[in-house]
Amino acid sequence: MSPAASSKKRVGILGATGTVGQRFILLLAAHPHFDIAVLGASAASAGKTYAQATTGRWKQVHPIPAHVADMPVGDCDVKRFMDCDVVFSGLDSGPAAEYEHVFREAELRVFSNAKNYRQDPLCPLIVPLVNTQHLEMVAHQRKTLGLKRGFIVTNANCSTTGLVVPLKALEAKFGPLDMVLVSTMQAISGAGYPGVSAFDVHDNVVPYISGEEEKIEMEAAKILGSISAESAFVDNALRVSAHCNRVPVIDGHTECASVRFARRPAPSVEEVVQAMEQYRCEAQELACHSAPERAIIVHKEVDRPQPRLDRDAQNGAGVNVGRIRKCPVFDIKFVVLSNNVMIGAATSSVMNAEVALAKGYLD
Amino acid sequence: MSPAASSKKRVGILGATGTVGQRFILLLAAHPHFDIAVLGASAASAGKTYAQATTGRWKQVHPIPAHVADMPVGDCDVKRFMDCDVVFSGLDSGPAAEYEHVFREAELRVFSNAKNYRQDPLCPLIVPLVNTQHLEMVAHQRKTLGLKRGFIVTNANCSTTGLVVPLKALEAKFGPLDMVLVSTMQAISGAGYPGVSAFDVHDNVVPYISGEEEKIEMEAAKILGSISAESAFVDNALRVSAHCNRVPVIDGHTECASVRFARRPAPSVEEVVQAMEQYRCEAQELACHSAPERAIIVHKEVDRPQPRLDRDAQNGAGVNVGRIRKCPVFDIKFVVLSNNVMIGAATSSVMNAEVALAKGYLD
Amino acid sequence: MSPAASSKKRVGILGATGTVGQRFILLLAAHPHFDIAVLGASAASAGKTYAQATTGRWKQVHPIPAHVADMPVGDCDVKRFMDCDVVFSGLDSGPAAEYEHVFREAELRVFSNAKNYRQDPLCPLIVPLVNTQHLEMVAHQRKTLGLKRGFIVTNANCSTTGLVVPLKALEAKFGPLDMVLVSTMQAISGAGYPGVSAFDVHDNVVPYISGEEEKIEMEAAKILGSISAESAFVDNALRVSAHCNRVPVIDGHTECASVRFARRPAPSVEEVVQAMEQYRCEAQELACHSAPERAIIVHKEVDRPQPRLDRDAQNGAGVNVGRIRKCPVFDIKFVVLSNNVMIGAATSSVMNAEVALAKGYLD
Amino acid sequence: MSPAASSKKRVGILGATGTVGQRFILLLAAHPHFDIAVLGASAASAGKTYAQATTGRWKQVHPIPAHVADMPVGDCDVKRFMDCDVVFSGLDSGPAAEYEHVFREAELRVFSNAKNYRQDPLCPLIVPLVNTQHLEMVAHQRKTLGLKRGFIVTNANCSTTGLVVPLKALEAKFGPLDMVLVSTMQAISGAGYPGVSAFDVHDNVVPYISGEEEKIEMEAAKILGSISAESAFVDNALRVSAHCNRVPVIDGHTECASVRFARRPAPSVEEVVQAMEQYRCEAQELACHSAPERAIIVHKEVDRPQPRLDRDAQNGAGVNVGRIRKCPVFDIKFVVLSNNVMIGAATSSVMNAEVALAKGYLD
Repeated sequence: MSPAASSKKRVGILGATGTVGQRFILLLAAHPHFDIAVLGASAASAGKTYAQATTGRWKQVHPIPAHVADMPVGDCDVKRFMDCDVVFSGLDSGPAAEYEHVFREAELRVFSNAKNYRQDPLCPLIVPLVNTQHLEMVAHQRKTLGLKRGFIVTNANCSTTGLVVPLKALEAKFGPLDMVLVSTMQAISGAGYPGVSAFDVHDNVVPYISGEEEKIEMEAAKILGSISAESAFVDNALRVSAHCNRVPVIDGHTECASVRFARRPAPSVEEVVQAMEQYRCEAQELACHSAPERAIIVHKEVDRPQPRLDRDAQNGAGVNVGRIRKCPVFDIKFVVLSNNVMIGAATSSVMNAEVALAKGYLD
Repeated sequence: MSPAASSKKRVGILGATGTVGQRFILLLAAHPHFDIAVLGASAASAGKTYAQATTGRWKQVHPIPAHVADMPVGDCDVKRFMDCDVVFSGLDSGPAAEYEHVFREAELRVFSNAKNYRQDPLCPLIVPLVNTQHLEMVAHQRKTLGLKRGFIVTNANCSTTGLVVPLKALEAKFGPLDMVLVSTMQAISGAGYPGVSAFDVHDNVVPYISGEEEKIEMEAAKILGSISAESAFVDNALRVSAHCNRVPVIDGHTECASVRFARRPAPSVEEVVQAMEQYRCEAQELACHSAPERAIIVHKEVDRPQPRLDRDAQNGAGVNVGRIRKCPVFDIKFVVLSNNVMIGAATSSVMNAEVALAKGYLD
Repeated sequence: MSPAASSKKRVGILGATGTVGQRFILLLAAHPHFDIAVLGASAASAGKTYAQATTGRWKQVHPIPAHVADMPVGDCDVKRFMDCDVVFSGLDSGPAAEYEHVFREAELRVFSNAKNYRQDPLCPLIVPLVNTQHLEMVAHQRKTLGLKRGFIVTNANCSTTGLVVPLKALEAKFGPLDMVLVSTMQAISGAGYPGVSAFDVHDNVVPYISGEEEKIEMEAAKILGSISAESAFVDNALRVSAHCNRVPVIDGHTECASVRFARRPAPSVEEVVQAMEQYRCEAQELACHSAPERAIIVHKEVDRPQPRLDRDAQNGAGVNVGRIRKCPVFDIKFVVLSNNVMIGAATSSVMNAEVALAKGYLD
Repeated sequence: MSPAASSKKRVGILGATGTVGQRFILLLAAHPHFDIAVLGASAASAGKTYAQATTGRWKQVHPIPAHVADMPVGDCDVKRFMDCDVVFSGLDSGPAAEYEHVFREAELRVFSNAKNYRQDPLCPLIVPLVNTQHLEMVAHQRKTLGLKRGFIVTNANCSTTGLVVPLKALEAKFGPLDMVLVSTMQAISGAGYPGVSAFDVHDNVVPYISGEEEKIEMEAAKILGSISAESAFVDNALRVSAHCNRVPVIDGHTECASVRFARRPAPSVEEVVQAMEQYRCEAQELACHSAPERAIIVHKEVDRPQPRLDRDAQNGAGVNVGRIRKCPVFDIKFVVLSNNVMIGAATSSVMNAEVALAKGYLD
């Protein structure tokens, strides 16, 4: 541990050995503000070192950071985490339902990747490149539940995350959107490990991902919605329709979107390109460690973005948009590419926590 | 050659050694009404047997039919084809521009796979499961050009072909559609051979296929349009917007469509399912050899159709539809899967010719 | 059920709903000598129809045969199978250990796909294109165990099966081989369903398959070995070394083999080609229903066989060999391609049973 | 250009816009000792900026380095390169035959990736992790050709490069090897761009790569051979047999090798593991910029190395070995994984040049 570690926030990780948990490890191992302090996983892993607990299941291109490899892994008992300043949860919805609310009740701050609390009217659903202003809902959440320090903040489903960044850029500049039709081509890694059977997705498209279309349709409206003076969520009239597909790509969700603006006449293609290129979010303004230089990289080549070539740009922390053109049915259509395991999962939680730290929510 | 061969129509094949040409060979080698008589290819192949001309380039799962292997291949000089009753052209647009009109002027009947004449107001653009009634345009074409027997009939682009079959089933039952938004995930084989570089499509999605979106948008309107008493084409108000993507799948185009009916209220999901299941086309009524038993197979499983599992149903001659459900933005959304190298190419030409034969256009 | 069904042998299938079981269904649904009578699966499937029990898990290109879809599925209690003439087992090694010996003790004839009895000195390990003569070991097995009718016959591991066919063709013509070095590239379907995680095999090679190398090394020696006058197995001096790899191919195992003959000088490339082309097995001589026309298809093209293009030749019942050439270290090297789900699994069991039937073992 | 640039060696790149050329750009854009000075490509690119010349063909995950994007690209006329200290050639064998000897005759130092001079007795064939000592052949080459400064040094074929590193580690410790049998599973990128058709390699294995097996068999012997006191090459008795396959993997060649030592008894598995782990090469001793920390990473997990997980370790500059175990036919078998576009191509040339620089060959 570095000498400066004492001034860093102590971090606990729930589900530390799973797919999302492994990404948390890599993102936080050398983080300037967070220090990995406590690792929680299933009972089967408890008592092992992190390296032992992930033997045969560490599926990252980078090796386990040396100082984490020997850290002890325990279970998810909240007592082990009581002196953590922040808890990142990579738990699936089953265990998340069991543990996350317990952590909140123990006055811990939980950044969750599970779907459980995304539609909860008390919990902000935050895509860090879009709506960190919704952190204000934490006040409402604490007040309603009688908490002083604890909260749950969720991040969005991976396929929602990529989509709402350009949508936000458009709404920020041109006012509300009426309708969005999106078709996704989602990567294998989005399903975790072991996740998708190779027998199902090899040389194939699976035009169905359980619950995914509903998530996009509901989450997009919440993320792009507004909050009242009392920090409660206010409904959003935006209508979204999603077609979700699994395709044989390892990382990177590609989404084809057609949008219709409320404003008539609609902005031109050139205006839309400019709005996306100029879009900046609060995480950038606050100079957060994980914030990308550009929230949206707008590609001019006719056949980009592509998952294999563009998913690792900016370490997967921004999104890529291309093929911005007129839509013969709606106003504008374009392609979005986002890294589902980075900005679509762990990176979102970390960036949300960085914004929360900068705004005093972790004091 | 079988004894009955004398009563079969003599067939010429242009571009016989290419990807589409190879499919023509397989489809026609044992056809009850057509007999392969003349093979035309590029000058490089002229003078070889078919087996020699396709050495290292025969990329079919089935071997070359024995009696075709030894047939001579010549060039595409129209003189070689003068006693053909039908000419199937698998030429790309470049050579198609050079040869097909010459064949028509020589009073030959040409069934073309190229894009050149698809938007020609004189040429019918026919998907055999949809609009074989447009063969009536042949009369107008012959009259305008002063021909007695010759004509060009085109079939549609592979991605258009799959889409328009369910659209036609809907319009036949519920009246005109207003708007269609479709996103395609197209197979590698759609680009011919060598076609797509593995370097481009492996572990990737390429969200662009040159000219493809415009083809779908324009062809769908023409195919679903009507013809006047004088057999000329009449405009169609349908608006279509397409997003086209190449995905790592060998055969089978998957398309996600959302549709809006002119009729209010729109039909229910159940009515749409029934309309698709009951839809029948003229090729079926005429009991054409290549017509599928069902124009549309409607899948009830939540995750079908899928290209690897469903592309070979009915030898690829019908289309597969699934996931018929309400669209939160339009009325109905669903998934279409069609075999791009069968109904999307050679099978379409052959079925078009079978209908033309049954209706007397080849006499 | 057809009128002739009464003269057919009554067949039971263990593990009927699994990957191998599904292939048994397709192979036996219209078989001239066998009639599907009893279906056994896990307790979870008992009481359902076959269609219900395989909902969401039927992963075949062909639909469930209509008369099988409505058949009841039960558990694997031997009482349900007492009037079966033959039992095909697609059980994995766990349940196979529990059930197969019970069936044999009940005087049933079991054709097993599991590894459990392959190295049992009483059980013949038979690749139907190679060593059906080893059925004679059934007499020894029955005598040793005090049985009148029952037996267990096993077929080989999928990667062994493809390899030993050309090895047998060589030994039949040129006498014993000394050494064989083989490197395999095995298909996804070889691991069953869900089997391999897409996350593991996509854009990847996994150079390890648990237990596979040992299976090839031991099974090849047994299959190519001989039996004594008392029908007991006699040891074989052949040394085999295998490298086994999983590659992103859906069906079809490709194997690169280098062989050294005991005989000096070794046969020439031309002699080896001829030996493979002329090789015939007992299943062919007996005109068994599933026997391929050619045990080995020898490819002359420089880049064949290939799994995608050649795995379905002869309905996957033979093997493909190509690139027969001199080896700078051993004598000869070549490539073998076999369909792991056909001749490498269910087709082998069925063909073994056909030979057994023809030779009177099922009377 | 940085102030220190004046002390760097001026570098010319031939074939700068191609697949290997693009890697040279990325490797050299921020190199401490080399400075990109002149870019040569085909006549079609001459007169464009580098960004213009690679529009639609820049297929790297990293963008074009900013200061290179605007550099002018010219043709390969030697006059443009006369003040270069080093010339890296990414030319294919056709243009390499035309240009490389001209550059040498003009007293330029050429590091070639083409096959043309690999078997030339005057040219060293160098894998930088193996035989940089062969740079001594440069003296013999210059003397024979009457040159003062010019030379051609070649690097090896990508599939040879990975293999010979562990072979060298073994010979360095245990003396000569007698026999090596290797089977490769080579990546798509090894064929350049557009290279392999997706239609050929998707869901497939192509068990043939033109000329590749001969290259491995001949190059391995030359690289592992020795040179005489007069710096001429001395023959090597090692016998190598290779099976080469193309598999659907984007980057990273996997090779399964079985080896037999001359020494009896052969070393144990443990001794072999230790020899590979401890192996160090001259580029490491000289602390060359591109030299990996470890020449060989020995994996202990039972299923590693794998191309997707291990190809980018050490930026692709070392090789990965795993599954070291006894071979039932030879002595030892193992798996090698190397990054074919890094150490297998551009990185090799650059590291060879770094060693040459350190040893005074570029003065």
